[in-house]
Amino acid sequence: MIVLMNAGASPDEIGEVVAHIEAAGLATVTMPGGAHVAIGIPSAIPPDMREPLRNALMAYSGVANVVHVSRPYKLASREFRAESTSFKVGDALIGGPDCVVMAGPCAVESREQIFAAARAVKDAGATILRGGAFKPRTSPYSFQGLREEGLELLRDVRAEVGIATVTEVVDPGDVESVAAHVDMLQIGARNMQNYPLLTAAGRSGHPVLLKRGPSASLDELLQAAEYVLHHGSSRVALCERGVHPLDRTYARNTLDLNAVPILKEITHLPIIVDPSHGIGHAKYVGAMARAAVASGCDGLIIEVHPSPREALSDGQQSLDPAQFSELMNSLRRVAAAVDRGLA
Amino acid sequence: MIVLMNAGASPDEIGEVVAHIEAAGLATVTMPGGAHVAIGIPSAIPPDMREPLRNALMAYSGVANVVHVSRPYKLASREFRAESTSFKVGDALIGGPDCVVMAGPCAVESREQIFAAARAVKDAGATILRGGAFKPRTSPYSFQGLREEGLELLRDVRAEVGIATVTEVVDPGDVESVAAHVDMLQIGARNMQNYPLLTAAGRSGHPVLLKRGPSASLDELLQAAEYVLHHGSSRVALCERGVHPLDRTYARNTLDLNAVPILKEITHLPIIVDPSHGIGHAKYVGAMARAAVASGCDGLIIEVHPSPREALSDGQQSLDPAQFSELMNSLRRVAAAVDRGLA
Amino acid sequence: MIVLMNAGASPDEIGEVVAHIEAAGLATVTMPGGAHVAIGIPSAIPPDMREPLRNALMAYSGVANVVHVSRPYKLASREFRAESTSFKVGDALIGGPDCVVMAGPCAVESREQIFAAARAVKDAGATILRGGAFKPRTSPYSFQGLREEGLELLRDVRAEVGIATVTEVVDPGDVESVAAHVDMLQIGARNMQNYPLLTAAGRSGHPVLLKRGPSASLDELLQAAEYVLHHGSSRVALCERGVHPLDRTYARNTLDLNAVPILKEITHLPIIVDPSHGIGHAKYVGAMARAAVASGCDGLIIEVHPSPREALSDGQQSLDPAQFSELMNSLRRVAAAVDRGLA
Amino acid sequence: MIVLMNAGASPDEIGEVVAHIEAAGLATVTMPGGAHVAIGIPSAIPPDMREPLRNALMAYSGVANVVHVSRPYKLASREFRAESTSFKVGDALIGGPDCVVMAGPCAVESREQIFAAARAVKDAGATILRGGAFKPRTSPYSFQGLREEGLELLRDVRAEVGIATVTEVVDPGDVESVAAHVDMLQIGARNMQNYPLLTAAGRSGHPVLLKRGPSASLDELLQAAEYVLHHGSSRVALCERGVHPLDRTYARNTLDLNAVPILKEITHLPIIVDPSHGIGHAKYVGAMARAAVASGCDGLIIEVHPSPREALSDGQQSLDPAQFSELMNSLRRVAAAVDRGLA
Repeated sequence: MIVLMNAGASPDEIGEVVAHIEAAGLATVTMPGGAHVAIGIPSAIPPDMREPLRNALMAYSGVANVVHVSRPYKLASREFRAESTSFKVGDALIGGPDCVVMAGPCAVESREQIFAAARAVKDAGATILRGGAFKPRTSPYSFQGLREEGLELLRDVRAEVGIATVTEVVDPGDVESVAAHVDMLQIGARNMQNYPLLTAAGRSGHPVLLKRGPSASLDELLQAAEYVLHHGSSRVALCERGVHPLDRTYARNTLDLNAVPILKEITHLPIIVDPSHGIGHAKYVGAMARAAVASGCDGLIIEVHPSPREALSDGQQSLDPAQFSELMNSLRRVAAAVDRGLA
Repeated sequence: MIVLMNAGASPDEIGEVVAHIEAAGLATVTMPGGAHVAIGIPSAIPPDMREPLRNALMAYSGVANVVHVSRPYKLASREFRAESTSFKVGDALIGGPDCVVMAGPCAVESREQIFAAARAVKDAGATILRGGAFKPRTSPYSFQGLREEGLELLRDVRAEVGIATVTEVVDPGDVESVAAHVDMLQIGARNMQNYPLLTAAGRSGHPVLLKRGPSASLDELLQAAEYVLHHGSSRVALCERGVHPLDRTYARNTLDLNAVPILKEITHLPIIVDPSHGIGHAKYVGAMARAAVASGCDGLIIEVHPSPREALSDGQQSLDPAQFSELMNSLRRVAAAVDRGLA
Repeated sequence: MIVLMNAGASPDEIGEVVAHIEAAGLATVTMPGGAHVAIGIPSAIPPDMREPLRNALMAYSGVANVVHVSRPYKLASREFRAESTSFKVGDALIGGPDCVVMAGPCAVESREQIFAAARAVKDAGATILRGGAFKPRTSPYSFQGLREEGLELLRDVRAEVGIATVTEVVDPGDVESVAAHVDMLQIGARNMQNYPLLTAAGRSGHPVLLKRGPSASLDELLQAAEYVLHHGSSRVALCERGVHPLDRTYARNTLDLNAVPILKEITHLPIIVDPSHGIGHAKYVGAMARAAVASGCDGLIIEVHPSPREALSDGQQSLDPAQFSELMNSLRRVAAAVDRGLA
Repeated sequence: MIVLMNAGASPDEIGEVVAHIEAAGLATVTMPGGAHVAIGIPSAIPPDMREPLRNALMAYSGVANVVHVSRPYKLASREFRAESTSFKVGDALIGGPDCVVMAGPCAVESREQIFAAARAVKDAGATILRGGAFKPRTSPYSFQGLREEGLELLRDVRAEVGIATVTEVVDPGDVESVAAHVDMLQIGARNMQNYPLLTAAGRSGHPVLLKRGPSASLDELLQAAEYVLHHGSSRVALCERGVHPLDRTYARNTLDLNAVPILKEITHLPIIVDPSHGIGHAKYVGAMARAAVASGCDGLIIEVHPSPREALSDGQQSLDPAQFSELMNSLRRVAAAVDRGLA
């Protein structure tokens, strides 16, 4: 941690800051500058002391800024674990040599619909079925999902079609029952900083797909992952799904593929990309899925509906089975060009 | 709802869209344009049909965009209720002629601290005490609040000092017990789209202070309020607390005071402003509090700590009691200049 | 300047960085941390060496980041000049005890229009007339201004009505002729980083009103001001006019009033606020103008048109003379509440 | 154009709006809605009438919003020209079947440097050399480019090494001399809305590489292109180079690859991607270059410096010749996977 003093900070002001730090049992190195003095803390600062110390120092007169040198997350960092994390969800290996494709409808709508979707995406080569039972919807008047009935359909389709499943959980009280029905828990973008939910998901020990919030920095995403890791699940995959756009004339979000190579460097967790929410219109999903694979991601999550025009949600960004099958063929070629397979 | 067709849309493509709408029992008006055709739906569309219909139409070839003409919220709109909503929280009237000031520490830290804070803010003229028992923190290693013990301290301080209270709730399962201890439930910015929480808060019937998310549009904020209203609480105040900033060199967020006059026009709900989070440094809070009052808001929520340097969270943006008292004096003058009192 | 090394940086990597800095004639202080090493440069770094040095150091392996400790501007900083800058534009004193009001139409459209506007805003108490002769327009098919004819009308109206004038300049080649016709040059938001224009404006020695770009940080704004100051004009006022909004459903931009108290602290230059562009609709301009004055700004620039419905540009955000006169009355009260006058 | 009235708009208010439109010689279709009335204008509206008419209508009481149905650009649209535009710059064909690679240093620094860079990028397979003679720099104290001397070096290197050239122009007064020395004019992100510069570039008839501004929407980018097209150059390529990021902890900008498939659909102009500025660190440039090619762009512009550590600008994001050569090999594989060559 480094404390930057104002240019006009007096020796007394500097002394008070140094005294505060040393009273906390930490060493200091004072670095006189041309205009500013900087005070460094070379000691390792315990995680639970970071924020209170920064807050306290920011409240001193003469302090311009307090900068953390080390990252605000630990378990999620490459420094903590150099080797890339991989784990199985059903038969799919996330974080391994192949790109994993998760696909399916936004919401589970009926037995017929989810079975048709599962068969179609499996036939095209996807290894994990997505489908929402609990839908977080912007309006209280929109379809909110089939809830428990949806979970049961996901359990049935997994058994009968033979495909792993991922579904969103929105209430900490539902984590246990959702985990009993599907292979992987999704925490959606709007819940990325829902700490009771992150904590419950971590405690379940179940695999978690954690989506980045629409204005979350990568450090905030990794701190959200830190909650899950800290509370007990080591099987976490991160998902980039687009950040708040400059405008929505042509796209729903701005897919931030910069996140892929950066996250691959700073964390050992696998990185999944959601091109469907990331751009928001079916006609553009293919291009962004190919770009994501070329950028080095470990997997994709793509919305596929047996009949997009009849979808109860996200129809405009869902592919139909024929489009998805064609996309999978093109993705195999791009994956091969970056020495990956597709699974 | 208006469907804009692409410039090159064929009569067949237009016909299919018209047929879809009419099959749903709605009328259409086709409007030939210079280049584009627009298809209007003059009928009132039931709320639960809005999104599915838009999704379905977006999935037709030839459709460029589908635009909602009416607002996506109903109970929260001025059109639904022309008269401004006001309600009491303890003795304070929110949404009335006076600006209400809520003040207190970020977190309840101890009996001494919360009692000292309560007395200080009451002495300076605030009528509602804020203080967090459940703290949503970016890092799992930061102080998470005193939880149940914090609620009990809030119940005690209300009784002994005689001041209304507001505190944040983060888990739907806690709504009932929080409502039993304080006068108003706060739903924080990170939980603005936590629908189980909004639903539980609505069902409690308790007054709710709903904070705007850091990248939420005003329509998204009002749809979040719609959840609370729809599920049974009519006593909702909206809180502007800053949106995601261009950078964080000098401020933690960008306080969006544009929201005040706009919300006052489009909704009947009272508007509170949080200058502490909105700018993030104690030295600037006064200027932004004065600006908020001048912009026409119905109240402020301000972080005040008996000793900011010792605060376990948000110390850098907390005023001490002397600074707060001085600020209240200047706020009274600004409020008077826009024909408001301060309570 | 502080160089933060990666956690795994080797002694060799650290040694190479130290050697590079010392070869440049600068001292180093190496600060061993818990996980990371930081290398401080306590010497003053000449301004023209800042960026090349940072670039060079960023290119070394093992370097995580290079952070400037001192601000990237000098002449614009409070550290360079503690006293607030004030200067006269015609009879108006910008940066003095009173808030200055600049008002007038977006564009000069005709002799009748600009004379009517000048008389109306002067009658209501404004001391500087705004009006564009060269209009930067998003579309090449929009009205581009009366150009030289507009300048002549501004020269005439100043002489006959007796009011100072400000107008935008968009081409470095026009600076001289514009300066010959008006009292203050405006550099628009879209040209904030047009360096030939900033340089030409600085060399003219004329007063300059510099608007913040829609995604410019305050440091970028101050560096743009630094160009003008460095090239010879010391009479620069900064203008906050709104940053890129989250969406444009209700407002054209997000007026960032946080900029006012922050800029007042870090720079000696006067701060003007443009509520007309900052919110973009006439009905909300009054609230934001009052908020701006309460936040501590040194002046306002407001669009006023004799007949907004007939305006060739920005009609939707222009006040008519009666609305402006009423606004001025309310602004006087708010200014008094923060111990300012209105001029 | 469609005028949306407020829910409570009176018949008189509606009548005044209709009368205004019809007085302008345009037809109207009034569409009664459940709550709102919408007034459509099915006539084609002349380009120069669009904005004044919208402004005028926005100023009427009872009007909630005025929405353009047709796009705000014409010459740049696919509707105007269905066939994709391609043109030659030196021997390179931009917009043809192959992806074109432009590469070279941020700035021309010396004869040795630019010749070494040109030979290296040509050897690796690039067909256009980039290099700045006039550098727009955030700080007036940074290196501003070799200016005329830089142009002469670009002319010499083109002749001697045999490679086409592109360089940035920042002042309308320099367009002619820059065009005399290089094959393509670059208009930088900070000048995207510098209309005198766009106009001068258009009038030169020279090929233009137009970079998107950091907070510019795609409609704003296309309107900037419209200036160049309208004033006489039909050879315009658009360049995505990253938009303003959520934060700058890990990346300088957010590369918006969504822009590629969207622009390919709505405009006939070729699309170039700049991964160097788009992410800002050399170690990540390769991943983003591959992603860009997979997304379907027509070319790349990449910063390559013979010795990045000694670069006077942008060293941290420049590849060295060996890294660039290796990147070209991987790009050929990705290009082949999407049925493109690399040139």
